[in-house]
Amino acid sequence: MSGKTLTLEKAHGLVVQALVKHRTDPANAALVADALVAAEADGQKGHGLSRLPSYCGQAASGKVDGFATPQVQPAAAAALRVDARHGFAYPAMALAVEKLSELTPTSGVAVAAVFNSHHCGLAGYHVEALARRGLVGLLFANTPQAIAPWGGSRGLFGTNPIAFAVPREKHDPMVIDLSLSKVARGKIMFAKQEGQAIPEGWAVDAAGKPTTDPVAALAGTMLPMGDAKGAALVLMVEILAAVLTGSHFGFEATSFFDAEGEPPSVGQLLLAMAPGPVSGGAFASRLETLLAAILDQEGTRLPGDRRLGLREKAQKEGLALTDQQYEQLQRLAADH
Amino acid sequence: MSGKTLTLEKAHGLVVQALVKHRTDPANAALVADALVAAEADGQKGHGLSRLPSYCGQAASGKVDGFATPQVQPAAAAALRVDARHGFAYPAMALAVEKLSELTPTSGVAVAAVFNSHHCGLAGYHVEALARRGLVGLLFANTPQAIAPWGGSRGLFGTNPIAFAVPREKHDPMVIDLSLSKVARGKIMFAKQEGQAIPEGWAVDAAGKPTTDPVAALAGTMLPMGDAKGAALVLMVEILAAVLTGSHFGFEATSFFDAEGEPPSVGQLLLAMAPGPVSGGAFASRLETLLAAILDQEGTRLPGDRRLGLREKAQKEGLALTDQQYEQLQRLAADH
Repeated sequence: MSGKTLTLEKAHGLVVQALVKHRTDPANAALVADALVAAEADGQKGHGLSRLPSYCGQAASGKVDGFATPQVQPAAAAALRVDARHGFAYPAMALAVEKLSELTPTSGVAVAAVFNSHHCGLAGYHVEALARRGLVGLLFANTPQAIAPWGGSRGLFGTNPIAFAVPREKHDPMVIDLSLSKVARGKIMFAKQEGQAIPEGWAVDAAGKPTTDPVAALAGTMLPMGDAKGAALVLMVEILAAVLTGSHFGFEATSFFDAEGEPPSVGQLLLAMAPGPVSGGAFASRLETLLAAILDQEGTRLPGDRRLGLREKAQKEGLALTDQQYEQLQRLAADH
Repeated sequence: MSGKTLTLEKAHGLVVQALVKHRTDPANAALVADALVAAEADGQKGHGLSRLPSYCGQAASGKVDGFATPQVQPAAAAALRVDARHGFAYPAMALAVEKLSELTPTSGVAVAAVFNSHHCGLAGYHVEALARRGLVGLLFANTPQAIAPWGGSRGLFGTNPIAFAVPREKHDPMVIDLSLSKVARGKIMFAKQEGQAIPEGWAVDAAGKPTTDPVAALAGTMLPMGDAKGAALVLMVEILAAVLTGSHFGFEATSFFDAEGEPPSVGQLLLAMAPGPVSGGAFASRLETLLAAILDQEGTRLPGDRRLGLREKAQKEGLALTDQQYEQLQRLAADH
């Protein structure tokens, strides 16, 4: 097989270079690169390097302000608002993580409402950052319209991920990360990029009919996981991520992909809890008891296990890119 | 049709009387009755009056301590632990709601970890109480084992409800309330009580095979909503409700139904957020924009609409009980 292998450091450098060449501040570019390379290393290609061309396009057109510095607005003793100022989401999310970890030792729980925001990528990335600081993290994010309300036919909500992470004493944090569509929209994007068909049951076309064509699926609506219950969760996340942050709804937000129009201005709600005080000191050992009980049953594994395996492999062996991906990365980094 | 109609007040009085005759403090009995009658009025029979015989049995045997007074333990500035002290969950939950609504004006967000707890009934009931105080409420509760870990075969987790409520300016709060099994376990209990079969797809028997027999289903495991994603949410709720509260896991908890053994000692995690400050003042009007956009599509309705309709009917016309239900209620209230 042809293709090219890049170390994570080399890939990171090229992503930074590409973004900086497309009107992005180097410090912001480094935070975006951290997230894209981490997603790629975790095998989450839909939120990895595949996003770089559209990120560069949006920074170049000004749809994303690559020079924005996110701003913290205190809202209450344990609540803050983070204005992403139409920049990339990652600097705003990193700021939220930092501020939440400053608040929680006193408050036990704290919440950050991120607004004027953009695609936050792999949702698990941000809660994992909280868990690495010893906190339980919960994230609700909204995204441009993709799912119809239950019983309806027109897309209104995004695929609206929920992410959750817990710290473990002798292991990497355990991360749960799921979009509420039957599959992540990124998977359909990736299939489109690769020219592959998608399985039936993932989405319906604009007329509401089943489709295996990723282009038709992206023009139609995604199906929620878990039918009516899943649709209720989609609404819950839309309220938490958009109403409670004062952000655009999925049906108001512009695309995360093209460089046209106003900024999407979606929202993210990030919650952090201090597990020691909240649990009365029981957290660390009880978590291990529960996870051991799961693994005690044949056929089980813990959420994120596959991802951690891929990450370790990528750290040792680097990222395997196709020739096309590698050339695109080089071209973006060389652009001026 | 035969049967008996009771006003909510009359039903409430009989429930209190029944509990008091079965070793329960009158103030605690009133809080339990509030919740059971409210669930019955909302058409949620699995968490309504059908629970009374087993509640009375457990209070009589001492599995539930009807005289327990829940105790608040501050854990951090915006976090508290509520020891239900092996009493009914409702007094502990009511105390948590009260304390959270005292904290949130200062903190913006607050969390209560309820432990040594019991069946909290209709999960939406507690978050609705927060929403009636102007707060956004989120509840995660664990319940005795009913669902196997994904890929496994033995029940480990409960059906682990998530409930969410938001205040509305000119309407009752909107409440989302869902257990993470494909259907609520209470529905299978109710089918068993009524001697009815259940649809296929709700549960598997002890050997892991599909069943329509509610007795076999209760001896087997429930299927999660949304397959692997739903199973991940079940684990998330188990961690939030049991690990983070320091409570028994589903596989450690005794039944909510029979009067045998130790108390179940499950947990509930209740989160409250002040929507005004967190959203920068946008919450109330943006919520109405979103809900109007949903209702603008034919075939849609808001979560809880059916429930609110039944509630209004019950308030006007009373509760329609079968002869059997009515006689049971009378018998329990007359017991000594």
